[in-house]
Amino acid sequence: MRFFSDNAASVCPEVMAALAKANLPDTAYDGDALSRSLDAAFSDLFGTEVAALWVSSGTAANALALAALVQPHQAVICHEEAHIQGDEAGAPEFYTGGAKLFLAQGAGARLDPAGIAALAGSIRSDVHQAQPAAISITNATEYGLVYSPEETRAIGDLAKARNLGLHIDGARFANAVAAMGCHPGDLTWRAGADVLSFGFIKNGGMSAEALIFFRPELAEATRWRRKRAGHLLSKGRFAAAQILAMLNDGVWLRNAAAANAAAAHIANAAQERLLHAVEANEIFVRLTPVEAASLRAQGFLFYDWVPGVARLVCSWDQPAAEVEALANAIARL
Amino acid sequence: MRFFSDNAASVCPEVMAALAKANLPDTAYDGDALSRSLDAAFSDLFGTEVAALWVSSGTAANALALAALVQPHQAVICHEEAHIQGDEAGAPEFYTGGAKLFLAQGAGARLDPAGIAALAGSIRSDVHQAQPAAISITNATEYGLVYSPEETRAIGDLAKARNLGLHIDGARFANAVAAMGCHPGDLTWRAGADVLSFGFIKNGGMSAEALIFFRPELAEATRWRRKRAGHLLSKGRFAAAQILAMLNDGVWLRNAAAANAAAAHIANAAQERLLHAVEANEIFVRLTPVEAASLRAQGFLFYDWVPGVARLVCSWDQPAAEVEALANAIARL
Amino acid sequence: MRFFSDNAASVCPEVMAALAKANLPDTAYDGDALSRSLDAAFSDLFGTEVAALWVSSGTAANALALAALVQPHQAVICHEEAHIQGDEAGAPEFYTGGAKLFLAQGAGARLDPAGIAALAGSIRSDVHQAQPAAISITNATEYGLVYSPEETRAIGDLAKARNLGLHIDGARFANAVAAMGCHPGDLTWRAGADVLSFGFIKNGGMSAEALIFFRPELAEATRWRRKRAGHLLSKGRFAAAQILAMLNDGVWLRNAAAANAAAAHIANAAQERLLHAVEANEIFVRLTPVEAASLRAQGFLFYDWVPGVARLVCSWDQPAAEVEALANAIARL
Amino acid sequence: MRFFSDNAASVCPEVMAALAKANLPDTAYDGDALSRSLDAAFSDLFGTEVAALWVSSGTAANALALAALVQPHQAVICHEEAHIQGDEAGAPEFYTGGAKLFLAQGAGARLDPAGIAALAGSIRSDVHQAQPAAISITNATEYGLVYSPEETRAIGDLAKARNLGLHIDGARFANAVAAMGCHPGDLTWRAGADVLSFGFIKNGGMSAEALIFFRPELAEATRWRRKRAGHLLSKGRFAAAQILAMLNDGVWLRNAAAANAAAAHIANAAQERLLHAVEANEIFVRLTPVEAASLRAQGFLFYDWVPGVARLVCSWDQPAAEVEALANAIARL
Repeated sequence: MRFFSDNAASVCPEVMAALAKANLPDTAYDGDALSRSLDAAFSDLFGTEVAALWVSSGTAANALALAALVQPHQAVICHEEAHIQGDEAGAPEFYTGGAKLFLAQGAGARLDPAGIAALAGSIRSDVHQAQPAAISITNATEYGLVYSPEETRAIGDLAKARNLGLHIDGARFANAVAAMGCHPGDLTWRAGADVLSFGFIKNGGMSAEALIFFRPELAEATRWRRKRAGHLLSKGRFAAAQILAMLNDGVWLRNAAAANAAAAHIANAAQERLLHAVEANEIFVRLTPVEAASLRAQGFLFYDWVPGVARLVCSWDQPAAEVEALANAIARL
Repeated sequence: MRFFSDNAASVCPEVMAALAKANLPDTAYDGDALSRSLDAAFSDLFGTEVAALWVSSGTAANALALAALVQPHQAVICHEEAHIQGDEAGAPEFYTGGAKLFLAQGAGARLDPAGIAALAGSIRSDVHQAQPAAISITNATEYGLVYSPEETRAIGDLAKARNLGLHIDGARFANAVAAMGCHPGDLTWRAGADVLSFGFIKNGGMSAEALIFFRPELAEATRWRRKRAGHLLSKGRFAAAQILAMLNDGVWLRNAAAANAAAAHIANAAQERLLHAVEANEIFVRLTPVEAASLRAQGFLFYDWVPGVARLVCSWDQPAAEVEALANAIARL
Repeated sequence: MRFFSDNAASVCPEVMAALAKANLPDTAYDGDALSRSLDAAFSDLFGTEVAALWVSSGTAANALALAALVQPHQAVICHEEAHIQGDEAGAPEFYTGGAKLFLAQGAGARLDPAGIAALAGSIRSDVHQAQPAAISITNATEYGLVYSPEETRAIGDLAKARNLGLHIDGARFANAVAAMGCHPGDLTWRAGADVLSFGFIKNGGMSAEALIFFRPELAEATRWRRKRAGHLLSKGRFAAAQILAMLNDGVWLRNAAAANAAAAHIANAAQERLLHAVEANEIFVRLTPVEAASLRAQGFLFYDWVPGVARLVCSWDQPAAEVEALANAIARL
Repeated sequence: MRFFSDNAASVCPEVMAALAKANLPDTAYDGDALSRSLDAAFSDLFGTEVAALWVSSGTAANALALAALVQPHQAVICHEEAHIQGDEAGAPEFYTGGAKLFLAQGAGARLDPAGIAALAGSIRSDVHQAQPAAISITNATEYGLVYSPEETRAIGDLAKARNLGLHIDGARFANAVAAMGCHPGDLTWRAGADVLSFGFIKNGGMSAEALIFFRPELAEATRWRRKRAGHLLSKGRFAAAQILAMLNDGVWLRNAAAANAAAAHIANAAQERLLHAVEANEIFVRLTPVEAASLRAQGFLFYDWVPGVARLVCSWDQPAAEVEALANAIARL
């Protein structure tokens, strides 16, 4: 029973069916009909004109987004526990040509305007320090917290006031939208976001994420950057097909809601052990070594986050029986 | 009837079946059983111990290979019409951190030791010029020519003598092996190659190429470079599955042979129009504008390479009727 | 008797005096009075508002200029024998973050609009090729030829028409102005140039070149790029002092005219041996190995450019007796 | 009365004399006799074979040193207040091709093995995180503290044990040696250092720092990196001359001792205000806004480090009367 990563989950049937259906000869790269329909599909979803590019990983999406917002001699403000800082092996530095990440703090890997402003205020405006040109936040955060539309807009307003771009790492954006029950525009462009890494893979996709530019003109240079990064796939139609299949009929939202519900069920059984509120599909619980070993002996697989803390992640396809079993097992500890 | 690119071809049934079969939860990234079996599968194929990594495009494979062989202040020797120079939008420069490409010449985009030595000899060994640290050749070449084992080894010997690494861009390596009817080791490590970009996508794959290190220790740093380039896929098992499906039972070689045979059939009908010998699956023919228009009017799609020259590419799945039709149409011109 | 490089020349007395005079405590980096006066001094010289930064080498000046004009995924058009291509060990690639240099041809390392347009026209506008964003020419060229104001403007017009920036590598810009007898603005901003690397070191300076932005807003980001490249000197006043000393009272033009006159005198004695017209301070002469050895036996030091061709360079301080002696020696060969 | 930076100080007479003496034609770049004598001069000073290169700024020295020790996908461990992190505008990221800086803590910007080990221990060894390949310490530190030979060796031992390179930012290395009264080898190679940025400019030089490789083979690639960074000066003999003049007859040590003594005198008058022990030439004192204003009204120029704290820096040439005056003024506050 795997609770260690939503990356370990299976691919949802709608995506598998779309891959089969796309398996006809078509134009290479992103010249095919499916790839060319992405802009319209996402513009429709977000209720504003966007430019949308497929890429094959969240790391590539994030790094390309940052490269669109900052120059090599500039900097990005992010949380000290952000994925772009701690889990991408320097991809932002690679793609931006060496821009710096300035690290802000906040509980649950969530930033707020005060924390960002404090950090920004500590940076001298002289040429001896790289100047921030963008803020990057993650929604849902690395700890499964969700920024509300208002919280996002507060950061967006700060970004505008300081002339900074705003990127959202949305590896679990679907879970955030499902959690908030709001329009996806409320968590993005209406709140001041410029670029979104919109994750599909953890949520039932196979190998395609979407990079959404709410200022479409920012996408232009990214087409070249994507190519020179080796992310312009030769048979791009299969990437587009995955994404379109999940946009169709609300699959993306349904999958995310299922994962969130599973997490909520387990969280309910683990209230007094929780490190953070469970707002999306991740649960961080305090476990003694003995308790952790006991759960593992019962067949539950999960990740030791730090000593004494386990991370449990629910996937879109987590069987109800597994969820129930884990909830019961934790309650019995 | 598409003859403009083998990237436009469909995905072969063995790959589609393997994707379906791989659709079970498993460890993320490259920790799954399929990904972990690649080293052994390719070591078996090549008859020597190799390290094998999946990546999602030929551009990424090439750029990672070059980054493993040269430092940012060094250079790569390649043909002036090599894909890495003319069709990858600066990916080698990006991945290597700004290494230079020094451009050699040769008919049909094929290099020979004399041409390489002449170029290398023109580079001063002082600090005012980047020093070459690798040679990159393409087999089959951009013009569908194939290096024989002997020709490859002659370049490999030169590389060793000058202390240069040797990379082979094998976007159509399968076609080269099928054309030569030799052991894949004869075109690679036995001939002195250090790294091979082994193409699967044009040959019936969907989204996975293999990067093969014949000096396995070279692969180590590449694991980090692949991650920071955003090419460590979160559900890597689907990439591994594609490759393994094509290695199994000789699918890769059968597909390539089919494409080569189709090209040979067309070439046979176009002997006096050929710019280059047709040794793999590409055919470059002289066509007047009127002739080109005539073929297009009959439903044949292809690429105008330069004025007066058309490129015709046969895919692994090119229907025999289309091949026959094109051969006849050219013969009738 | 050194004729191998104007870099080997001495520092002119005005510069030495200025260094001594500047040797008082002052604000660090470029906050001192001398550094702050550069903008005005060069604006006055060029007759238009410019931003001027000192740097410590021509390579740094060129590379910073290009980084101001092109993005990492773009390209620069230059001559195949340009210093930025052949003598800077990849500095442009380093500073631009991996932009490509596309190499045009032209006699005497001089470009013309037709050659540039032909090269630009050969580049597809798709994402598979880096797109040119700037042209770089060298005045005087690597072979001592000089672009006239009209020739420069023809290239500037082409640059504007194609939306390309125009950089001038002016390592020997003073020699070009002296040769043309024109206003320095005629060879730069009036002809469409955006940035000039204005050389002082070969012309009597010690360690300071000037980077001149004719679109002053382009200089802003360069202040950060200069710092992160390690070219913001801690005692920058000594760099500014050198440059100001040479701007004062026309020293820069007088020095260059002296070097040009010396070269003209030697060229006069070597008319039938010249590879290129001698328009500045470099002379390329055909010499048999025996002739070259004879000159060396007489004490003349020079550089073998290619087999059978020697490069002779005259410096601002070349003693008249040495010049006369060389002219006579060549005449006697 | 300037106490805000040793960069503001004048150039010492020995250096000025050496510049005048070097003003003869000689070979360009680093081919001249002075530049070629640096290896021997520093090998003699350090008592071991070293390779020594001049560069024109401490930032360039540091960045080149780091680029010699880490690959683009790796990381450097340094103090969170290190100059390379906070005052070089991303130069390390630029020169290393995007390596990350991992920030450790320690009072007075001084690292110790426990702090380094704690940081290193927090980095997972998987491919999702850049792996440290070097440690960089600053001696004297940003706060004027000095690592003893034993403290340095403890870090050097840790570096060796973890297979990390060790770089020392010695912008004020002379002050550290003068403070310790030890052999310069005791603070460097005998303690396990691989590379030293040996500062001369703050200590009486004009525009030359030395980069010392205690593993001379590390210097080779750096010759190319220096060139492509634009730091191979065309008249390099003037850089070499400055350094040699300061090595001669112990000028470097005498100048540093003078600065240290001046700082000690002022520190003595400010004991109860000191934030850190005054071990080199910097003094950090607590001052109320009124006190700071009072000192400024008396003509003392200094830098507000953070609110309530002033930084006072003594230079090699700080007049005794100024030092006495400042000591008295502080005592009177």
